[in-house]
Amino acid sequence: MTFPIEEWQAKAGEVAARLHPAGPMPLARNGMAELDPELASLVQVLARGKYYADDTVDLKTRALCTMACLVAIGEQRYLENWMGNAITAGATVDEITSILGQLFVYVGTPRAVTAYDALVAVRDRIEAAGS
Amino acid sequence: MTFPIEEWQAKAGEVAARLHPAGPMPLARNGMAELDPELASLVQVLARGKYYADDTVDLKTRALCTMACLVAIGEQRYLENWMGNAITAGATVDEITSILGQLFVYVGTPRAVTAYDALVAVRDRIEAAGS
Amino acid sequence: MTFPIEEWQAKAGEVAARLHPAGPMPLARNGMAELDPELASLVQVLARGKYYADDTVDLKTRALCTMACLVAIGEQRYLENWMGNAITAGATVDEITSILGQLFVYVGTPRAVTAYDALVAVRDRIEAAGS
Amino acid sequence: MTFPIEEWQAKAGEVAARLHPAGPMPLARNGMAELDPELASLVQVLARGKYYADDTVDLKTRALCTMACLVAIGEQRYLENWMGNAITAGATVDEITSILGQLFVYVGTPRAVTAYDALVAVRDRIEAAGS
Amino acid sequence: MTFPIEEWQAKAGEVAARLHPAGPMPLARNGMAELDPELASLVQVLARGKYYADDTVDLKTRALCTMACLVAIGEQRYLENWMGNAITAGATVDEITSILGQLFVYVGTPRAVTAYDALVAVRDRIEAAGS
Amino acid sequence: MTFPIEEWQAKAGEVAARLHPAGPMPLARNGMAELDPELASLVQVLARGKYYADDTVDLKTRALCTMACLVAIGEQRYLENWMGNAITAGATVDEITSILGQLFVYVGTPRAVTAYDALVAVRDRIEAAGS
Repeated sequence: MTFPIEEWQAKAGEVAARLHPAGPMPLARNGMAELDPELASLVQVLARGKYYADDTVDLKTRALCTMACLVAIGEQRYLENWMGNAITAGATVDEITSILGQLFVYVGTPRAVTAYDALVAVRDRIEAAGS
Repeated sequence: MTFPIEEWQAKAGEVAARLHPAGPMPLARNGMAELDPELASLVQVLARGKYYADDTVDLKTRALCTMACLVAIGEQRYLENWMGNAITAGATVDEITSILGQLFVYVGTPRAVTAYDALVAVRDRIEAAGS
Repeated sequence: MTFPIEEWQAKAGEVAARLHPAGPMPLARNGMAELDPELASLVQVLARGKYYADDTVDLKTRALCTMACLVAIGEQRYLENWMGNAITAGATVDEITSILGQLFVYVGTPRAVTAYDALVAVRDRIEAAGS
Repeated sequence: MTFPIEEWQAKAGEVAARLHPAGPMPLARNGMAELDPELASLVQVLARGKYYADDTVDLKTRALCTMACLVAIGEQRYLENWMGNAITAGATVDEITSILGQLFVYVGTPRAVTAYDALVAVRDRIEAAGS
Repeated sequence: MTFPIEEWQAKAGEVAARLHPAGPMPLARNGMAELDPELASLVQVLARGKYYADDTVDLKTRALCTMACLVAIGEQRYLENWMGNAITAGATVDEITSILGQLFVYVGTPRAVTAYDALVAVRDRIEAAGS
Repeated sequence: MTFPIEEWQAKAGEVAARLHPAGPMPLARNGMAELDPELASLVQVLARGKYYADDTVDLKTRALCTMACLVAIGEQRYLENWMGNAITAGATVDEITSILGQLFVYVGTPRAVTAYDALVAVRDRIEAAGS
C-alpha cells in the first residue's frame, strides 16, 4: 500500500493555517517534537492532512469531537488547546458549555469540572486578547 | 433555584421519539433502571431534555460528541448505542469512520479498535435490518 | 415520573450545613458553577438531597465511599475535599489511613500515594487551623 | 523493619472465615494464584491481616469502600465479589443501591451502570441460593 | 520533512515475519483494518518499521515494554497478543510472570489479575499447540 | 505459606544501592511513607527484593517495563523517577525515546507527550548535574 503523504502534507498546512492563523500552534514545542521530530511531524501530517482536512466532516464538528474525547481523558492542556481550536473553527463558548453539560452524564463531576475550568481559562484568554 | 423539570420531560420525550422512532431504547433495561428508577429517569430527563433537545447544538453533532467521549472511556455497549443514535440523527458510517481515524491519535489502538469494532457491529445490524 | 426536588433541596441544605458548618464549600467556585449554574445546582441537590442526606447509609460511611471512589480516579483536589468531609462527618485520620492501605491493593502505588499525599495536606491544614 | 507476618496470617484467616463461611473464595482460582502463588498469598495476608481484620474500621465499611473504589475501576468480576463480601459483612442491597446513586455523580453512567448490573447479578444469585 | 515510508515498509515486513512466522497475525482482521485499511496499514508500518525493527532496542525488550504498557490499559485481547509476541521474540513464561509481579505494585490486583489470566491463556495455547 | 522477608530485605538493599548510589531515593519522602511506614516499607521490600533483584530479568529491562506501564498510567512524577532508574541501570535517552515512539501507538498523544516531557526533564537534570 502507498500513502499519499505529500497530499496530506499540503492539506495539513491548510488546516494549520485555518486553526492557527497567527502562527504555529503552542503544543508544537513539546517533548515529542524535541526528542522524536519525525514522529511528531508524521502524527500532525496524518491527523491534519488525512482527517481534519477531510470535509467528509466539517472542521468545527471534528474539533468538538476531539474535545469531547479529551474530556474523558482529562488532560487540561489538551482540552484548552482543542477548545481554542473549536472556537477558531466557529464554535461558541455557549455551544461548548452545552456540550460539556451533556458529557457530564458520561464522565462524572471530576472530569467535567476539569473541562469547565479549561473552558473558563480559554474564554478569559480570548476576552483578554480582544479587549 | 428552581428547575424546569416538566419542560425537560416534554423535550426529552421529543428527543426519545427522534432517536428511537421504533420504540423505547434497549439500554432502558439496565441495572440502574431496575434498582434506582428515579435516578435513571432523572438522568434521562436531564440529558435529553436540557441538552440533547437544546438546539444550541444540533442532535447529530451532540451524538457524535457523546460517541467521541465514549471512545476514550472504551465501553463497547455504550459505543454501539451512540453510534446508532448518531446514524439515526443523520450521520453516516463514513463520517463516523473518519472521526474515529482522527480520535485514534489521542486514544491509541486498543481504544480505537474497540470503537471500529463497535461501528462494524452497528453497520452490520443496520444492513441486516434493511435487507 | 415526578421528582421531589423541593424535598431534596431542603435536605441538601441540611447536609451542606453539616459538611460545611463554617460556610459554603470551596469547590462551589468552579467552572461548572460559573458556566452552567443550573446543572451545578441540580447535581448538588441530587447528590446531597437524595443520597448524602438519606440515612439508609450514615454520612461518614458515604463520605468514605466517595473518597474511596476518588482514590481510583486520582483527582487530588476532590480527594482533599472529601477527606475533609469525611473528617467533618466523624472519621479520623487514622481511619482514613487504614482504608487507604486496603485500597492500595486495588489501585497500586501511584494512585495510592496521591491519596496519602492528599491526606497529609488535609491533616496539616486541620492542625494549622487548630493551633 | 520487621513485619508481623504470622500475626497477619492468623487475622487473615479469621477475616476469610467471616467473608467466606462456606469455604474458600472463588477469586482464589485466578491466574496470579496459579503463576505466582507466593505473591497472591502475600497480597491476601497483607490485605486481610493488616487491613480488613483491623477494627479501626469495621469490616462492612471496609467492604463498601473497596466496592466504591472498584466502581471507578469498572471491573465487573471484582465488583460482584466485593458486593457479595459487603452483604456478608452486614450491608443490604438497599444500602449498596443508595451508595451507587451517590457514586454515579463522580463516575458517570457507563461505570455506574456496570456497578448496578453487578448488584443485580449478586442479588439474583443470593435470592436463587435462598429459595 | 520527508518520511522513509518504503524503508519502514521493508523493515516492517521483516518484523512481521519474525513475530508471525506461521503467517499474518490474527489482530489484522479487526474493525480498523476493515473500515480504514489505509490507517491500519500506516500504523503497522510506523510501529513495526520505525520502532520494532529498530535495533536500538532489541525486539524482546520492546515486546515486553508494549506488554507492560497494556497491563495498565487492561485490554486482555491485546495482552495475549503481545505476550505471544514476547515469547516468539525469546521471552519465557517465567520471565513474563516475574515482570507481572513487579507491575502489580503499580497497577493493583484487578489489572494484574487480568494480565496473569492472559498469560495462563497464552501458555495453555502454546502447550496445546506443542503437544 | 512462609515468606522469605529477610532474604528480600537483603536483596532490596542491594537493588537500592544500585539504583540510588548517591543515597535514598527522593520518592521515599511521600505520604505513604509518612502515614503508613510499615506498608511503604513492605511494598519496597517486595518490589525490590522479590522482583527487581531477581535476575530472571535484568534490572534495565525491568526498569523499562515499569516505565512503559507508567506511560499508560500517566503520572509524570513516577515516570521521571523510573526513567532515571532505567538510565542508572544502563539505558540511554535514545533507547527510551525509541520505546516511547512505539508506545505512542497504544496510548495516543496526550499520554505519550507527558512521557516525552518527563524524559526531557530527566535528561536536562542529568546534563545539568554532569556539567
